[in-house]
Amino acid sequence: MSVERQPLTGSQLRPVPLTAVTFEDAFWRPRRALLRAVSLPAQYAQCEATGRVQNLHRAAGWLDQPFQGRYYNDSDVYKWLEAVAWLAAEAPDVTLAQMADGVIAAVAAAQQPDGYVNSYFMFERAGERWQDLANKHELYCAGHLIEAAVAHYRATGRDNFLRVAIRLADHICDRFGPAGQAAVPGHEEIELALVALYRVTGNGTYLAQAQRFLDLRGRGLVGGRVYHQDHLPFRELPAPAGHAVRALYLNMAAADLLAETGEPALRAALERQWWQMTTRQMYLSGGVGARAGGEAFGGDYELPNGTAYAETCAAVANVLWQWRMLQLDGAARYADVLEQALYNGVLAGWSLDGLGYFYDNPLASDGRHRRQPWFECACCPPNLARLLAALPGYCYSTSAEGLWVHLYVAGRVTTPFGRLRLETNYPWAGELTFTWETVARPGRVTLFLRLPAWCAAEDVELVVGDGQRLAVADPALQVRPGTLALRRAWQPGEQVRLALPMPPRLVVAHPHVTSLTGRVALMRGPLLYCAEAVDNPGVDVRDVALRAAPAGMVAVAGLPGMVGLRVPGVVTRPGAEWQGALYRAAAPARPGERYHLTAVPYFAWANRDPGRMQVWFRLADRGDWDKAD
Amino acid sequence: MSVERQPLTGSQLRPVPLTAVTFEDAFWRPRRALLRAVSLPAQYAQCEATGRVQNLHRAAGWLDQPFQGRYYNDSDVYKWLEAVAWLAAEAPDVTLAQMADGVIAAVAAAQQPDGYVNSYFMFERAGERWQDLANKHELYCAGHLIEAAVAHYRATGRDNFLRVAIRLADHICDRFGPAGQAAVPGHEEIELALVALYRVTGNGTYLAQAQRFLDLRGRGLVGGRVYHQDHLPFRELPAPAGHAVRALYLNMAAADLLAETGEPALRAALERQWWQMTTRQMYLSGGVGARAGGEAFGGDYELPNGTAYAETCAAVANVLWQWRMLQLDGAARYADVLEQALYNGVLAGWSLDGLGYFYDNPLASDGRHRRQPWFECACCPPNLARLLAALPGYCYSTSAEGLWVHLYVAGRVTTPFGRLRLETNYPWAGELTFTWETVARPGRVTLFLRLPAWCAAEDVELVVGDGQRLAVADPALQVRPGTLALRRAWQPGEQVRLALPMPPRLVVAHPHVTSLTGRVALMRGPLLYCAEAVDNPGVDVRDVALRAAPAGMVAVAGLPGMVGLRVPGVVTRPGAEWQGALYRAAAPARPGERYHLTAVPYFAWANRDPGRMQVWFRLADRGDWDKAD
Repeated sequence: MSVERQPLTGSQLRPVPLTAVTFEDAFWRPRRALLRAVSLPAQYAQCEATGRVQNLHRAAGWLDQPFQGRYYNDSDVYKWLEAVAWLAAEAPDVTLAQMADGVIAAVAAAQQPDGYVNSYFMFERAGERWQDLANKHELYCAGHLIEAAVAHYRATGRDNFLRVAIRLADHICDRFGPAGQAAVPGHEEIELALVALYRVTGNGTYLAQAQRFLDLRGRGLVGGRVYHQDHLPFRELPAPAGHAVRALYLNMAAADLLAETGEPALRAALERQWWQMTTRQMYLSGGVGARAGGEAFGGDYELPNGTAYAETCAAVANVLWQWRMLQLDGAARYADVLEQALYNGVLAGWSLDGLGYFYDNPLASDGRHRRQPWFECACCPPNLARLLAALPGYCYSTSAEGLWVHLYVAGRVTTPFGRLRLETNYPWAGELTFTWETVARPGRVTLFLRLPAWCAAEDVELVVGDGQRLAVADPALQVRPGTLALRRAWQPGEQVRLALPMPPRLVVAHPHVTSLTGRVALMRGPLLYCAEAVDNPGVDVRDVALRAAPAGMVAVAGLPGMVGLRVPGVVTRPGAEWQGALYRAAAPARPGERYHLTAVPYFAWANRDPGRMQVWFRLADRGDWDKAD
Repeated sequence: MSVERQPLTGSQLRPVPLTAVTFEDAFWRPRRALLRAVSLPAQYAQCEATGRVQNLHRAAGWLDQPFQGRYYNDSDVYKWLEAVAWLAAEAPDVTLAQMADGVIAAVAAAQQPDGYVNSYFMFERAGERWQDLANKHELYCAGHLIEAAVAHYRATGRDNFLRVAIRLADHICDRFGPAGQAAVPGHEEIELALVALYRVTGNGTYLAQAQRFLDLRGRGLVGGRVYHQDHLPFRELPAPAGHAVRALYLNMAAADLLAETGEPALRAALERQWWQMTTRQMYLSGGVGARAGGEAFGGDYELPNGTAYAETCAAVANVLWQWRMLQLDGAARYADVLEQALYNGVLAGWSLDGLGYFYDNPLASDGRHRRQPWFECACCPPNLARLLAALPGYCYSTSAEGLWVHLYVAGRVTTPFGRLRLETNYPWAGELTFTWETVARPGRVTLFLRLPAWCAAEDVELVVGDGQRLAVADPALQVRPGTLALRRAWQPGEQVRLALPMPPRLVVAHPHVTSLTGRVALMRGPLLYCAEAVDNPGVDVRDVALRAAPAGMVAVAGLPGMVGLRVPGVVTRPGAEWQGALYRAAAPARPGERYHLTAVPYFAWANRDPGRMQVWFRLADRGDWDKAD
């Protein structure tokens, strides 16, 4: 059980575990402190207030009361446990640890002699176990139990929870293994959890079971619906489809299996889905799943803003899928999407005070969409929490050649090659200074640095050692698009300085996104921006057209420490000709007035006075500028 | 029972019944012949093939077999009966009459001693009657039975079906009247049906029961959901909301009640909803209900094209609601919307061969959306059929002052003022010649002609009598916006010639429809146009930008008798810069190539080779034209 297996044939990179990484930055470190001090205690309180904890106590035989809430509510507690575990790897927390230990004890006590554990299917419902795999989320809950137990074991070294997970996994492998029932779950999750369990235990049965669940999918065992990704075998799927979170959890499992097996058909299927999703089905926020109906991926270029579903959980899943793809071969495009989804699609789901969450994340709002402290279906809050708790583990990898830096967070990482320090004010500024504080082995080691896709390479500055300026476009340096490879025998104290210019920029969407014709969005570095009514009094943000002119940086009231943007534009209010009309004959636009729009990071929206928010702005015609001048 | 009551206090117009109208035109007459010869027999065959007819035979005790299909399937048969009845008013049809008589006999035989009739809640389900008003559509089915029976009585003069309806209505009034259960139906329909029954029977109990159902709504009796319009009392509703068909059926009933009672609060509520819907929630096709989820109205300016739900039934309901509003005071804006929804939103739901139907009507498609011969939930086909069957009754009204012409269909109408003939090739041409073939009474009579809102009034020509040219802008003539009032002592043979210019025109949407920024649609007269791949080979219609320049009229292969449009534009295919990209930095557009787009009436789309269809086109920048020139 102490074997920590690493992927064998399919993967070129190995994650640097979160225990080897410290954050010392001004962006993520305070957010993770908030997570620890505010969000996770509040989430536990919600789990208690809504009976989620009591359901487990009841299953343990400690309480005699009815089950409360939905049949999948155990999973929220498990995701919360996973978050607590990852944070414990950073520093112990007595309060959270007591809460967690109590839950783990209840789960252990609730476990049946055969290994089964699920607080819903107990007592009067014990006979219903494994009867409705399409809808009842038992394997989904089991997967989150296993993921939480693996995290707990990896973070704390204690195996009490892991032993529960192993007994449960053994029960599942027994029931659904080759000698058992041919079945797949309605909500994917168990597959990737079994791979994770395999990686800490070395028990190949779990890997084989994960493979079996993947291989049996798409054959109608849960009804053959697109919603469940059961309409086609995985290797034949042309695009992500159906319920977005489920689809990406399936992709995560497939990438995990690919890492273990190197199976070309899995690689081809994942690549196909990746290109399809990132070029046709993803919001500029990195959010995915355009449709509220079925919480599902939309069709090609179907990316409405006001009704964007873009579930927080789907953005979390996007990050976790990208991470797995990134490990396969280190291609920077995966890290680009990971960063895009993390800083925008995921982070928007969490309020700045740590107490509110979005379930869906529209890219335009009339101001009535506000974060909530909890949901009846509360998947998103603990999902976001477990991702941010594990974030130090998503920044670095190693390969035989050296150390890969994917996400730029100020702090230190300790690796077999030595300890590297990164100083930066990223994502607010693009200046990065890397210092090899120690060098662990002689000889040449490559430092792989990501050149983000949002960055204009010709303006990047790279200085190595005592002042040697390197051209990032040099193919010997940029070994693959977006990956700078600095190979040398590093000396302790040696520095690399990388300056990524971060001018505010206007972004357009593919012309076939017909709902975004003539519209631009604002970005700076990895951050997507939006405009809120609170910063633009007296103006309806829908009436503002931006000019293709440089924007300035400003401080914004109520968002301390953040970089706001001041963007030149034109405001044209609908005139009397629109009174009582929705359509009318096309006519030349009326002249507008000059206006400077204030924009703020999208992730920070809806934290102040409610009001209209918009991400995509009309691009002013040249004519509009002339008239306004 | 022979009393035909007309609305009393709330309505200024009275419909000219369809029995007084003959269509002699090249547009609707052949379509109604197709309805009679092809669509209605095929619909009956579908009702037999899917067990809908047999359900009624079973309920009559003629068959011993299980109920088939959905619990509301009777309603489809009733709507089919209504269509057959209205067509019978035009001319008898032995085949259809035999089918109808068989169904009516079954319904009569199935009726219970207490008047109840519904083929689902029979035998083993008899105990479930009236137990789930929110979901089980019993009152909805009853309403369609009553509407069909009223149509049958009005069209044929026979009362055998009406007597069934009366017994059913009496049962409903007994059960849900003031001494009975306080309840409302989950799907509105019974309310307007009871008013219709009141109007042919004079029995005020039915009117009172309709009023009671309206008044009790919005008080949580079916759960208080927006979906059911049960979240607010009707008089407080700020906007149409929830399930679009239900919402508009409720509005139809409210308009009917307003016509009877003149209640100011009902008028205010209806006017509020009308302005809200037509200025924020209606497609250019006249379709409504943007969202597939809940088949519901969307929010303000939420009008996506590719995912537009715009159920055919909702467009039918829009026509029927507008007709009722129009009767209240004759305001032309209601007739404008009626015409818009009829020629576009409704008609698109029906294939040119009479055998296929759309349930939802998107305004953009990748070509995979095709009409179907029937649906498991088959509300739309017979709903469209009953509207088109009754269409002659939606063209004319009378008031104390004279005759109102709302829809321009070549043919004759016989009224208390005399017989009027209309010659025109509308909607393909705007020249209208009215001739008083007979004049029934001496003295001055007003001929009210609608000046459509799509028409540029300054270019309209109006010639009366032997050549007197009138200025339509004259307030003495255009008594209200869109209504020309020609008051004189007409002589037999006297003519009025009205020429409504129909140049193809580009239409834009309100700037707050942010998904339509920079986009234009094509219209000509009342018809919305679209472009299909079949007429534009080698071009992706998404890549075409239209120029603000005159379009020409062309014949289109496969659409005989229709006016197609040839529209100057520019085609700009996404270049290599979009390879593998969904978003990129804004940059000046590449030059396009001149292209002439072929557009066809929207109602005729998807009748030829499948392919991409689009309604809203990018408007070419001036710069695009220069580059392409």
